[in-house]
Amino acid sequence: MTLVGEILAIGDELIHGALLDTNSKFLAGELERIGVVVHRFSVTSDDPAHLRSAIADACARADVVVATGGLGPTLDDRTRDVVAEVLAGPLWFDAESWQQVQHWLCSRGRPVPASNRRQAMFPPNAKPIANPVGSAPAFSVRIGRALLFALPGVPREMQVLLRSDVLPAIAALPGLQPMAQVWLRVLGPSEAALGERIESYMVPGRNPAVGITASGGLLTIRIVGTAATAALAATACEATAAELRSLVGEWMFAEGTVELPDLVLQRLRAAGRTLAIAESCTGGLIAARLTEVAGSSDVLMGGVVAYSNASKQALLGVSAELLAAHGAVSEPVAAAMAAGARSRLVADVGIATTGIAGPAGGTPQKPVGTVCCAIATLEGTRAWTVKIPDLGRQFIRDRAVFEIWRALLAR
Amino acid sequence: MTLVGEILAIGDELIHGALLDTNSKFLAGELERIGVVVHRFSVTSDDPAHLRSAIADACARADVVVATGGLGPTLDDRTRDVVAEVLAGPLWFDAESWQQVQHWLCSRGRPVPASNRRQAMFPPNAKPIANPVGSAPAFSVRIGRALLFALPGVPREMQVLLRSDVLPAIAALPGLQPMAQVWLRVLGPSEAALGERIESYMVPGRNPAVGITASGGLLTIRIVGTAATAALAATACEATAAELRSLVGEWMFAEGTVELPDLVLQRLRAAGRTLAIAESCTGGLIAARLTEVAGSSDVLMGGVVAYSNASKQALLGVSAELLAAHGAVSEPVAAAMAAGARSRLVADVGIATTGIAGPAGGTPQKPVGTVCCAIATLEGTRAWTVKIPDLGRQFIRDRAVFEIWRALLAR
Repeated sequence: MTLVGEILAIGDELIHGALLDTNSKFLAGELERIGVVVHRFSVTSDDPAHLRSAIADACARADVVVATGGLGPTLDDRTRDVVAEVLAGPLWFDAESWQQVQHWLCSRGRPVPASNRRQAMFPPNAKPIANPVGSAPAFSVRIGRALLFALPGVPREMQVLLRSDVLPAIAALPGLQPMAQVWLRVLGPSEAALGERIESYMVPGRNPAVGITASGGLLTIRIVGTAATAALAATACEATAAELRSLVGEWMFAEGTVELPDLVLQRLRAAGRTLAIAESCTGGLIAARLTEVAGSSDVLMGGVVAYSNASKQALLGVSAELLAAHGAVSEPVAAAMAAGARSRLVADVGIATTGIAGPAGGTPQKPVGTVCCAIATLEGTRAWTVKIPDLGRQFIRDRAVFEIWRALLAR
Repeated sequence: MTLVGEILAIGDELIHGALLDTNSKFLAGELERIGVVVHRFSVTSDDPAHLRSAIADACARADVVVATGGLGPTLDDRTRDVVAEVLAGPLWFDAESWQQVQHWLCSRGRPVPASNRRQAMFPPNAKPIANPVGSAPAFSVRIGRALLFALPGVPREMQVLLRSDVLPAIAALPGLQPMAQVWLRVLGPSEAALGERIESYMVPGRNPAVGITASGGLLTIRIVGTAATAALAATACEATAAELRSLVGEWMFAEGTVELPDLVLQRLRAAGRTLAIAESCTGGLIAARLTEVAGSSDVLMGGVVAYSNASKQALLGVSAELLAAHGAVSEPVAAAMAAGARSRLVADVGIATTGIAGPAGGTPQKPVGTVCCAIATLEGTRAWTVKIPDLGRQFIRDRAVFEIWRALLAR
């Protein structure tokens, strides 16, 4: 037995299409890292009746509930009030928290509207958690069997409080069972084909458990084990991983729970190499994913989004003759783009994509999903073509990005 | 009274950190557009016990439940089996669906593993929904008061089946109440300051309802009204919008439920103008957001991700003297980047960002969050500086992108 966790995201904006909930996925990962088993997220609007039942239900099912959102200063921020209702007691005012809210606003030259005073009100028996990076104080409180943490919805504030207060408090709870995991990254087969290959490992109840997850053409084999100690769990996961590696063979191209853009940057940095990017069909996605990572500027020299033929010529030095002879979506043009990015941006490695992301632009010879990629280094330039199933523009672009990660990690 | 909907996303990959659930947000928007009121999403792992209770709970609360995921061919795809358990009856085999699955795989030159046969099994009384864009057939089935639709988790397949089968079936249900909405986009004030300004409109129970949602510094005022007819609901929303527009004043910069990158492309296209992008701190994000939109290539000539000083010189023609005199994060350099992008990519409008996204790189004069922007047109070049609160790298980059959308929409 170990502790069961649930995640609860609160806010009209999450339901009504203004904002995608990214907190829950992050929180689940962090809780699982310390051994809390998570099976469910809930997302609820600010509507008091729905919020009340979502909080009560989660606290009835789980040992630990982490909620985000609804701690702001406006009238539709109701987490405090609804938790007080669930506990059938009045809110109380914490003078120390009010001082922190005022101080945070004043020190940033912001006015202190009276409505912010609401943020220093807490449900019965709640323990305030000071917020050093925002105006909304958080709190923890016991509701039945569950310990509930109510955190701000702003991702950065949530993350800071999670690390400073929430994870240490959970780690100190009795009943946590040590856990380990290994991820194997696979590109090539369909999910069904990979599933058949490793079916005997995917039986319910196996420890370590083996599952396949699919995202934009990337398949991830997740191996998750629990044991009496973290070291024993890691050993068991590694034994399963060794067997799966030989079963999966050349389809596997990376492993570990590190996100692929981070892994790419780590590898290039370790090899002392810099990177330049030339993107047509991926339209800036490769650069955006890499520059999300803090400190990427020591590896990434720059990039070019060369959508038009004119921009391929002006910014990358691709010749008009080459474009006319082979078409923009071709291996020679991909190679010239990668080489052009490498030389113009003075980088060790140049990469390029050019393809047809759809929905329009396909031909019988080059249907939607045809993507030409290239990698240029001191040793020379290599270009290749991927035929990506037409599962939509987003899928094709994402799959093309994964193709580039694979090429960079294979070096 | 109107119909209440719930969304259920199924799959280990959504809980365990491999994949972000984007389907639920999309589904909620589509359901609300036809008048279904959505208050809750649930996300659950493939664990049978949790899946069973999530399905049963949602069907007990809602009139319409749309579930995604768990229809694949592998053993951990359990939606079919668990729905059959909830209905306490056996699965049945549909020969017609099995033919469709085989045909879909064969026509793509893929093998037909026996495990795919599982995809043609359905719970008692379920109505199969043929899938023209993937191998997984969907189904609908009544569970107590609710009509449940089980769709594939692949976004494109889900979207196609939603439009072809699910929305028409829901629209034919008795009890739907016409609804309308207006969104006002605001950049500048804090959420609390905007909330104080329009507080008297944000009272619970008001029709049209008024709420504020915040995302990366962008505030959206959502006005949602219901009435006997869609036209009456729209009139009521417009009357509220007119009052809010004058209250909010110059903070407002756009309106409508269209996503901002789409709106920017529509505006430029209507004006017959083309765009070129030069990005430093946003690192490709502006280009990636624009190229997500199909057909963006007629407006977007191309872009440059100029992270290093060398790339600002080589690709945009920013002079070494200017960089030395003012530093890379300065209005003159932003202006030179925008003008350079415009002329080198032969576009009507050039835009640029250069700033300090953090966490490192800040100075007392130019702290983290300082972003210089510029826009270059035939009429000349304008540069300005935004001081973005340091709420993290992601927030600063997102907020800088919103600043560019505002500048392009203000023209």
